[in-house]
Amino acid sequence: MFDKTYLLPADALQRLLSSIPDTLITTERLKIEECYNRIISVDVVAPEDLPAFSRSTVDGYALNARDTFGAKDTSPAYITVRNEIMMGTSPDFEIKTGEAAKIPTGGMMPKGADAVLMLEHAQAVSDDMIEAMRSVAPGENVIQKGEDIQKGATVLASGRRLRPQDIGALAGIGITGIEVFKKPVVSIISTGDEIVPASSLLKLGQVRDINSFTLAGLISDNGGVPVKKGIFKDDYGTIKKAIEDSVKDSDMVLISGGTSAGTKDMTADIINDIAMSQGGAGVVFHGLSLKPGKPMIGGVVNNKPILGLPGHPAAVVVCFNLFIKPALERLGGFISNKIFIKTVAAKMAKNIASAAGREDHIRVYLEEKDGEFSAVPVLGKSGLITTLVKADGIVVIPQNKLGLDAGEDVTVRLF
Amino acid sequence: MFDKTYLLPADALQRLLSSIPDTLITTERLKIEECYNRIISVDVVAPEDLPAFSRSTVDGYALNARDTFGAKDTSPAYITVRNEIMMGTSPDFEIKTGEAAKIPTGGMMPKGADAVLMLEHAQAVSDDMIEAMRSVAPGENVIQKGEDIQKGATVLASGRRLRPQDIGALAGIGITGIEVFKKPVVSIISTGDEIVPASSLLKLGQVRDINSFTLAGLISDNGGVPVKKGIFKDDYGTIKKAIEDSVKDSDMVLISGGTSAGTKDMTADIINDIAMSQGGAGVVFHGLSLKPGKPMIGGVVNNKPILGLPGHPAAVVVCFNLFIKPALERLGGFISNKIFIKTVAAKMAKNIASAAGREDHIRVYLEEKDGEFSAVPVLGKSGLITTLVKADGIVVIPQNKLGLDAGEDVTVRLF
Repeated sequence: MFDKTYLLPADALQRLLSSIPDTLITTERLKIEECYNRIISVDVVAPEDLPAFSRSTVDGYALNARDTFGAKDTSPAYITVRNEIMMGTSPDFEIKTGEAAKIPTGGMMPKGADAVLMLEHAQAVSDDMIEAMRSVAPGENVIQKGEDIQKGATVLASGRRLRPQDIGALAGIGITGIEVFKKPVVSIISTGDEIVPASSLLKLGQVRDINSFTLAGLISDNGGVPVKKGIFKDDYGTIKKAIEDSVKDSDMVLISGGTSAGTKDMTADIINDIAMSQGGAGVVFHGLSLKPGKPMIGGVVNNKPILGLPGHPAAVVVCFNLFIKPALERLGGFISNKIFIKTVAAKMAKNIASAAGREDHIRVYLEEKDGEFSAVPVLGKSGLITTLVKADGIVVIPQNKLGLDAGEDVTVRLF
Repeated sequence: MFDKTYLLPADALQRLLSSIPDTLITTERLKIEECYNRIISVDVVAPEDLPAFSRSTVDGYALNARDTFGAKDTSPAYITVRNEIMMGTSPDFEIKTGEAAKIPTGGMMPKGADAVLMLEHAQAVSDDMIEAMRSVAPGENVIQKGEDIQKGATVLASGRRLRPQDIGALAGIGITGIEVFKKPVVSIISTGDEIVPASSLLKLGQVRDINSFTLAGLISDNGGVPVKKGIFKDDYGTIKKAIEDSVKDSDMVLISGGTSAGTKDMTADIINDIAMSQGGAGVVFHGLSLKPGKPMIGGVVNNKPILGLPGHPAAVVVCFNLFIKPALERLGGFISNKIFIKTVAAKMAKNIASAAGREDHIRVYLEEKDGEFSAVPVLGKSGLITTLVKADGIVVIPQNKLGLDAGEDVTVRLF
């Protein structure tokens, strides 16, 4: 009964993204300590060298490398130590041939010195004389001025998601505030005449809103700001107004549920209806060769993605990863650095069948034995939230495969 | 010159964790929407069944499965449709033999019905009569009362890190607030006479504080609350007071830097000194068979981990992953669900050497070609923050290996 004319997820995503313009989200200027995991919107050019002076990387003696050439335990070089360099200060003397100055790790190299002999390789023979037991090469144990970052170099390119060390690098060159893309705001509209808030006492026939809680967490984890708009009755005018209001104050709109008969078509009709007055491609796909997630709707209104999600909890998570996550990354500012999906290599624990022409997303949990992972399918209907609670991730069976064999190598996409 | 009597990282971690008592962190009660990525401190037992009633998983007809037995296209079963079930309501009628009621996806099953015939498998022959073109099995297309979660079942066990779908499951059974472990508070003490704040104009010989920015991000990303205590001069009394103050108001203390000559020993002496008056094991390791990260210090004061980190930016990140992350997970409440380190399988792009007896953590960036990853070592001293900015992750060379060959399979631990 599966309609093979439905789009595959990758084609549907392509259709959605190509209907959204390139630049939507504006930027904001924040202190760097507020920018962890944010995406910068400008190229950052170093205003100065890092380090601003040549530094020792060890505790030792700053000297001329050539004064140590040929030195070894049995025939050390004798060097006069005239000074000691203090941390955080600029030495006011110059090292001449045959001379050295004691230097701490991180200390500033004095003029005339081009290398540092490690403390361990020196032996004091008097108050102002050491034996160098090794030779050092020019530049050895020294970080040169600008070696880490050169003035004028692009330290971080626009579109990069900032990791802790990237923020550290900005601090290092004295940049304490930067321009980042604003986080995309995502409205969540829960629909369904049977849906009540999590805090409600249930009447028979009612169920609590699960999906808006799952979606809000997924949106936050992926760089968006979730806004729960509430639970709305399955009524054309009510849902149309909820979507119109959401389009005004957010960058993406999710409609969760609407599982009752005829509602799926209603959501699509509303999206097309609003697109007529506000512009946008309207519905770009409706129904997918995907399990779970077949009834998924993708649309664009007023340049903003409007996604109609199936009501089943498992389908919500699968569709999030396939559509909402890439859309968030696109809206959030064209991430330029590589994003690695968190995966684990495993072997299937059991045979599992799949219909041809359909992409199957199988929930699995992982069992570890002798350092190898076995992926055990979590059986159960996609309407059960506990299948997701038990699962560690997803194995995808592509549309041209009829299933997976026990023992087959698979890549598990972790939640 | 590498001291082979130094501990390996795994042994040092073991020594640190075994010196901390099992229960340190207290708990707090929060709304579930505040609990994403938090760790629950109690077993959650379901107060009711989910769903609270048997529901249809499709749009169709609720009926007695036995009325359809043997039905097919060529010899359909005739069934009388007397009622329609509305979403969110409890049907006030009973299905008798030969009868059906129209039911939407998610609708409540009426008494007397045990299965749902999909809309696609039924054909209307009159206003109140359908042909069933297929047979359905008892229970088919129905989620039974309590099938997702049974009243009294443990839904989530104490010590679990809550993912979006876990919060969704709590909402589903009407639990809107839970007890979670408080986030461990981690003090960051920056030391070094040459270190100045990121916002400072530099005098020659000075460098800006990079590591506290890197550490703060890593701590937040791993479930802790970073507290920057500021930059302190390399002076026994000053640093002792900074550590004592931090022990009072945090669960873990990090001392970053102290790279100047003799300071490493000073930090160890201070930790032992404070342990004398406040209790605790004092220093449990000092120096590791690890590159970068050799000068690392681990200690315990008043039951709290006190970690002295090397000043080099690359060493900070390596030591964070080896010690601070596991300590945070331990302090944060004994995480019971599996934690998967984010890794990527790759092949080394170049030969790389390593000294025997030492664990080497090599920074690499990944290049993708034809779906395969190549791990390219990022060359450069561990004092350079840009080596971390360029790198995507770390490849570990264990102490018994003398290096890696070009083309060798490696697992890259992603940042």
